[in-house]
Amino acid sequence: MHPEPLKTAVSWAEADKILIRGYRLRDLIGRVSLGQAVYLLLVGELPEPRVGRMMEAILVSVIAHGPTVPASRAAITVANTGASLSAAVAAGMLAITRYHGGAIEDAMTVLEECVAMRLDPFEAATEIVARYRSRAQRIPGFGSKVHQEDPRVARLLECARELGIDGPYVEHALALQRAVSVAIERHLPLNIDGAIAALLCEIGFPKQAANGLFLISRAAGLVAHAVEAQLRYKPLETSAVSGLEYDGPPERSLE
Amino acid sequence: MHPEPLKTAVSWAEADKILIRGYRLRDLIGRVSLGQAVYLLLVGELPEPRVGRMMEAILVSVIAHGPTVPASRAAITVANTGASLSAAVAAGMLAITRYHGGAIEDAMTVLEECVAMRLDPFEAATEIVARYRSRAQRIPGFGSKVHQEDPRVARLLECARELGIDGPYVEHALALQRAVSVAIERHLPLNIDGAIAALLCEIGFPKQAANGLFLISRAAGLVAHAVEAQLRYKPLETSAVSGLEYDGPPERSLE
Amino acid sequence: MHPEPLKTAVSWAEADKILIRGYRLRDLIGRVSLGQAVYLLLVGELPEPRVGRMMEAILVSVIAHGPTVPASRAAITVANTGASLSAAVAAGMLAITRYHGGAIEDAMTVLEECVAMRLDPFEAATEIVARYRSRAQRIPGFGSKVHQEDPRVARLLECARELGIDGPYVEHALALQRAVSVAIERHLPLNIDGAIAALLCEIGFPKQAANGLFLISRAAGLVAHAVEAQLRYKPLETSAVSGLEYDGPPERSLE
Amino acid sequence: MHPEPLKTAVSWAEADKILIRGYRLRDLIGRVSLGQAVYLLLVGELPEPRVGRMMEAILVSVIAHGPTVPASRAAITVANTGASLSAAVAAGMLAITRYHGGAIEDAMTVLEECVAMRLDPFEAATEIVARYRSRAQRIPGFGSKVHQEDPRVARLLECARELGIDGPYVEHALALQRAVSVAIERHLPLNIDGAIAALLCEIGFPKQAANGLFLISRAAGLVAHAVEAQLRYKPLETSAVSGLEYDGPPERSLE
Repeated sequence: MHPEPLKTAVSWAEADKILIRGYRLRDLIGRVSLGQAVYLLLVGELPEPRVGRMMEAILVSVIAHGPTVPASRAAITVANTGASLSAAVAAGMLAITRYHGGAIEDAMTVLEECVAMRLDPFEAATEIVARYRSRAQRIPGFGSKVHQEDPRVARLLECARELGIDGPYVEHALALQRAVSVAIERHLPLNIDGAIAALLCEIGFPKQAANGLFLISRAAGLVAHAVEAQLRYKPLETSAVSGLEYDGPPERSLE
Repeated sequence: MHPEPLKTAVSWAEADKILIRGYRLRDLIGRVSLGQAVYLLLVGELPEPRVGRMMEAILVSVIAHGPTVPASRAAITVANTGASLSAAVAAGMLAITRYHGGAIEDAMTVLEECVAMRLDPFEAATEIVARYRSRAQRIPGFGSKVHQEDPRVARLLECARELGIDGPYVEHALALQRAVSVAIERHLPLNIDGAIAALLCEIGFPKQAANGLFLISRAAGLVAHAVEAQLRYKPLETSAVSGLEYDGPPERSLE
Repeated sequence: MHPEPLKTAVSWAEADKILIRGYRLRDLIGRVSLGQAVYLLLVGELPEPRVGRMMEAILVSVIAHGPTVPASRAAITVANTGASLSAAVAAGMLAITRYHGGAIEDAMTVLEECVAMRLDPFEAATEIVARYRSRAQRIPGFGSKVHQEDPRVARLLECARELGIDGPYVEHALALQRAVSVAIERHLPLNIDGAIAALLCEIGFPKQAANGLFLISRAAGLVAHAVEAQLRYKPLETSAVSGLEYDGPPERSLE
Repeated sequence: MHPEPLKTAVSWAEADKILIRGYRLRDLIGRVSLGQAVYLLLVGELPEPRVGRMMEAILVSVIAHGPTVPASRAAITVANTGASLSAAVAAGMLAITRYHGGAIEDAMTVLEECVAMRLDPFEAATEIVARYRSRAQRIPGFGSKVHQEDPRVARLLECARELGIDGPYVEHALALQRAVSVAIERHLPLNIDGAIAALLCEIGFPKQAANGLFLISRAAGLVAHAVEAQLRYKPLETSAVSGLEYDGPPERSLE
């Protein structure tokens, strides 16, 4: 046995007391939003208001992405065998990797490299692109299997502008988009991982927890698709099926 | 192959368009909170304001519960082997079951039985307690391994009162607490699963998705403890350790 | 903290010594087969020779079942996102439930009920079928989504006969097959779970560990399909694919 | 949708026919052992007899390793919450990584580098050790948290000698052990991952499937510890416990 107990600064539970980063959980209930509480857990402090609003926007942006992406597919397949909701959501989580929803941390690293060069953004970007291409590596945060222009990206950047959060990292991310597209002679847009990476750099979010934001938010989409699979599909039905179709409410606007 | 594609009403992604229950995800970003988006995904409609606030309170109440509960323990153990964040969180999820964090749905069923009896709450509760005891079954939603009086319960019920959400299900839950305690001649308090169950009954939340709320919120606590394990503990260190200690910020208040 | 340590009778590792049910692991290596070691771990004693051979036959019979069953599908989906082999196999495991590969324990319970009636097998079976049908329950161990006559079943029963292991449970399983088919007026064959259940009853295998045999053996099939997904398929390729085709060695015989 | 179906050469199931690498599964049952079937699945051909025996020895050598290693701990923690056997075993799998049970593939790479140098084994080893140390990297396949001399290693190498399987890779592995120990001025023994790596190189086993052997065999240990947790421990009991003790059969010998 180890002579000393391990230490945690995250959360603590003992008889009649639960602490989250020093706050009593009882005091947080009804006073902070889920997005603020997520920030507190991962960063260690409550966000200032505009950072809290940015956090909610980022979390909402990746909450679900249809039934056919690998994480949804794994969750639905497992839910449809009669497994528990926990098991279905866990299976979906396991499909979230560098190639699928987990490129935020890597994209933050690239943006940090860009900004650290202290050059004109397009010059820095051009150099970074050359460096990655010489190693035959993809630059994380660009391109998508599904979208030509990801509608979430423009909207997230707009939110950042409204909140005064767009700074050098956003500028460098857009420069990188131009430099990549010049290099490959085809428009390769900033994707959702890349946009979130830029905004997390702007607010000083810890890089090692960044992919965790995706996991937390997407848990909601996985639960929703898994519950639907449990309630709507016959056991093992999904394995014999060729396609999926949307039959939810028709498109509607917020107001 | 199945002649017809499966249907989903939850979410959909196609080129440059993502729908969540009919809303464009682009329109939700920056306009609804994470808690509201969770509600939309699971229920199908956006919550009215006070229901949205109740939802945030409920979600925040189960966001983390210290490092020694089974879900945290599993996540920390796996994170400490060098596994990915996804794998660590998935392992933690798998520890969430009827006995640990997953009794909300069952507790909702009990409360529905109570209310359906159309009796005085204490009479209904006494009958339900007798029924469960005759089958040697525990009534879900009462008692805790950690807490005598769970501080989250009182606070959640207070929020519900402030929002005008406390109605017959809360009344029956408290009657059940009295009846259980009379039957076993020892105070057995409503626990967090039981309190959430009562509030979800009040707002008409679909029972089959109720345990999913716990999974979504607790994903945040699991990510936070897993990231800490990756950054702070030496590989495989946790397996040799006898205990855990809190060394985060000292207790502090919200203002 | 608990006053007493938990006890395990399964395996133990300390400096320079590893015990499996009392045997030094060092002594087992090269002297017992994997199937015998699995039996030792789950039952507590080494099998007598014919039981050991039955165990190998049972384990081999469920080692893989194509790429489209839910467990394979989940493992391939996750492997194809760049996840680790562990994560892919874990996701596949999560798809193994009562409805898919995990009905062995339940089928053993039914056969125990049949034998305990001390009636002529067909009479007992007819009564059991009536009982399950009156509760609108499926009898576990019969029918298959894929096979009309599962080729593994006949072969397993043949092995059992050769080894002198076919006794009352096999007889009752076949009687149950007849009684079910009479009741539903359509031939519903004993499936692989049902056949294994009968043989495990014959050798006195502990029911609570029975589904574990499926998990252990199928781990091999999941590893093989996941490795192929990692090596052969482009990242995220599977999510866009409608079907799967076999292009392995053409059918060949053992000699 | 993809224009072409994906291909698999591993296994196939269609009405009344199951193929494993071209063999009918029906023909394998009762004729090949589990270890031979594992080899067939992963390599594509049935092993010749002495390779088959080596495979059984390797698989048996990692079948279980006590309750306190991370994989067992995760499986026991999850099983003890009332989760399914599948979920418990999956959680255990997720703890198997490069740092814990998953170094076989990496150790094979090092041995391939050594042999490819076409030098005297100790010279090659000394150069490799210098190379890894200059990059501050650990050489995979050496050292153990638990054992000074791992009893499985000597026994596996003895089996290899008896079967005539010990060749250049074993020689280089032992040279590497000497060179590492010289470099760090302390005996650092070949561990079980390193020994298995050498033997798999000798028999030409595909490197990318090597860690899969560990997952397959250890599935048995995880099932056994998880079943014991379900049957012997009270729900949630493990989270309050400080230690574990062996109370299985006292040490005994094979004859």
